[in-house]
Amino acid sequence: MSTLTIAQLQTHVYEDKLKNVEMLVPLLRQAKEGHADIVCLPEMFACPYETKNFPDYAEEEGGPLWNALSGLAKEFGIYLSAGSVPERTPEGNIYNTAYVFGRDGRQLAKHRKVHLFDIDVKGGQSFKESDTLTAGTWSTVFDTEFGKIGLCICFDFRFPELARSMVLDGAKIILVPAAFNMTTGPAHWEVMFRSRAIDNQVFTFGTAPARDRSASYHSWGHSIAVSPWGKVLNQMGARAGIQTTAIRLEEVDEIREQLPLLKGRMEHL
Amino acid sequence: MSTLTIAQLQTHVYEDKLKNVEMLVPLLRQAKEGHADIVCLPEMFACPYETKNFPDYAEEEGGPLWNALSGLAKEFGIYLSAGSVPERTPEGNIYNTAYVFGRDGRQLAKHRKVHLFDIDVKGGQSFKESDTLTAGTWSTVFDTEFGKIGLCICFDFRFPELARSMVLDGAKIILVPAAFNMTTGPAHWEVMFRSRAIDNQVFTFGTAPARDRSASYHSWGHSIAVSPWGKVLNQMGARAGIQTTAIRLEEVDEIREQLPLLKGRMEHL
Repeated sequence: MSTLTIAQLQTHVYEDKLKNVEMLVPLLRQAKEGHADIVCLPEMFACPYETKNFPDYAEEEGGPLWNALSGLAKEFGIYLSAGSVPERTPEGNIYNTAYVFGRDGRQLAKHRKVHLFDIDVKGGQSFKESDTLTAGTWSTVFDTEFGKIGLCICFDFRFPELARSMVLDGAKIILVPAAFNMTTGPAHWEVMFRSRAIDNQVFTFGTAPARDRSASYHSWGHSIAVSPWGKVLNQMGARAGIQTTAIRLEEVDEIREQLPLLKGRMEHL
Repeated sequence: MSTLTIAQLQTHVYEDKLKNVEMLVPLLRQAKEGHADIVCLPEMFACPYETKNFPDYAEEEGGPLWNALSGLAKEFGIYLSAGSVPERTPEGNIYNTAYVFGRDGRQLAKHRKVHLFDIDVKGGQSFKESDTLTAGTWSTVFDTEFGKIGLCICFDFRFPELARSMVLDGAKIILVPAAFNMTTGPAHWEVMFRSRAIDNQVFTFGTAPARDRSASYHSWGHSIAVSPWGKVLNQMGARAGIQTTAIRLEEVDEIREQLPLLKGRMEHL
């Protein structure tokens, strides 16, 4: 199988953790009716994006939220890239963690955000994830019936080394639950998803929360799908909704053959 | 000194090699009157871009063309990033080589294109530099009164690893003599210069030949200057001309402090 459909859910994030899961049911039904094979959720889709919330909302792998997400993947028979959630470890560390579940509900991948989002832009956005989060330590690629897929979280995608690492490990699609803001969004969101796609000749998908002016962090939204030639296939605005994109994975191989960037790499430099 | 002016000459490429040098005199005078500190020329500015021309037009380092360019840098008291020219070695190899001369005419840097341009886009551009050229083997950064500057040639800039290498070696500006075409230009030129600038928080300058529909290779032109925040400061169209951009190098340090991408790199991945 090389043709697949990816649905991105640009959701509103409620303070009530469970409400964020309950609202997925009709959305996943809608995605399934649109023939979605893979459904993507935003970064921290069930926890308003504030450092103080991460420990409060955190659960261990296998906890109630994890179980509900696994169950939804199985119920709808879809791959669920379940955005990211705060994960607590038995040692008491908190991570920004992205789980992926297969059509049978089994966990296929788990990525912990490697590059924590600590920025302080003059006259713009400030945020410091490292106040409450611990950084992950690995690059993540998982296998599916369609081929290999890479996964990272928001600020991770700022670093070309990580995208390259996933692609050298076989990824032909990179999924990125993310939440850019009103400073970095207009300046860098689209160009980043396009350039990672072009440089690595992969499909890139960034899925963000809808904008909520009543929240303390204002998401840029603009969930995006980009082809391996760097064409924006789909991009949302700021409001909640579903975006569905059908892709043909052979396009990756065709472009890699015509414009041999991966073969042309000079590893010694 | 941290404020400097860079002039980019988007020139027409004549078959008569010497004519390409003679025409520089009035252009360099104009650039100097515009207070240019650094003047940039396009890739293969003195040799129509065809593989069969490279051996015919090639000269050794220190040859007549090299001497003329060195003399112009000294005459006008400018840094001259002398685009690129075909270089012949005593062993008979031909390289796509970029020389940089200082205000006193001495050679400050020499970059040989590392990634040769071999592409074959279906229904679009085909070209095979490796038919007549040999690949360079090093990454190039040189020192000036303003700080360190990186240098690479066109297809080299496709590879994020090389840009990163120059920046880790201290570059705050990257100069790229280049010649994208009518297939890759509209698709990838601007996004590449913007993304390398954003990811590495450096100024990027791409200088291309003017478009010539009578030539066999149609240059995209669009010589471009981008800030370390990824803002397009200046961009030309397809026609010949001079583009002058004044920059403040402190902007690099300010942005690296506010959005700490270079500090945040995880080298182990």
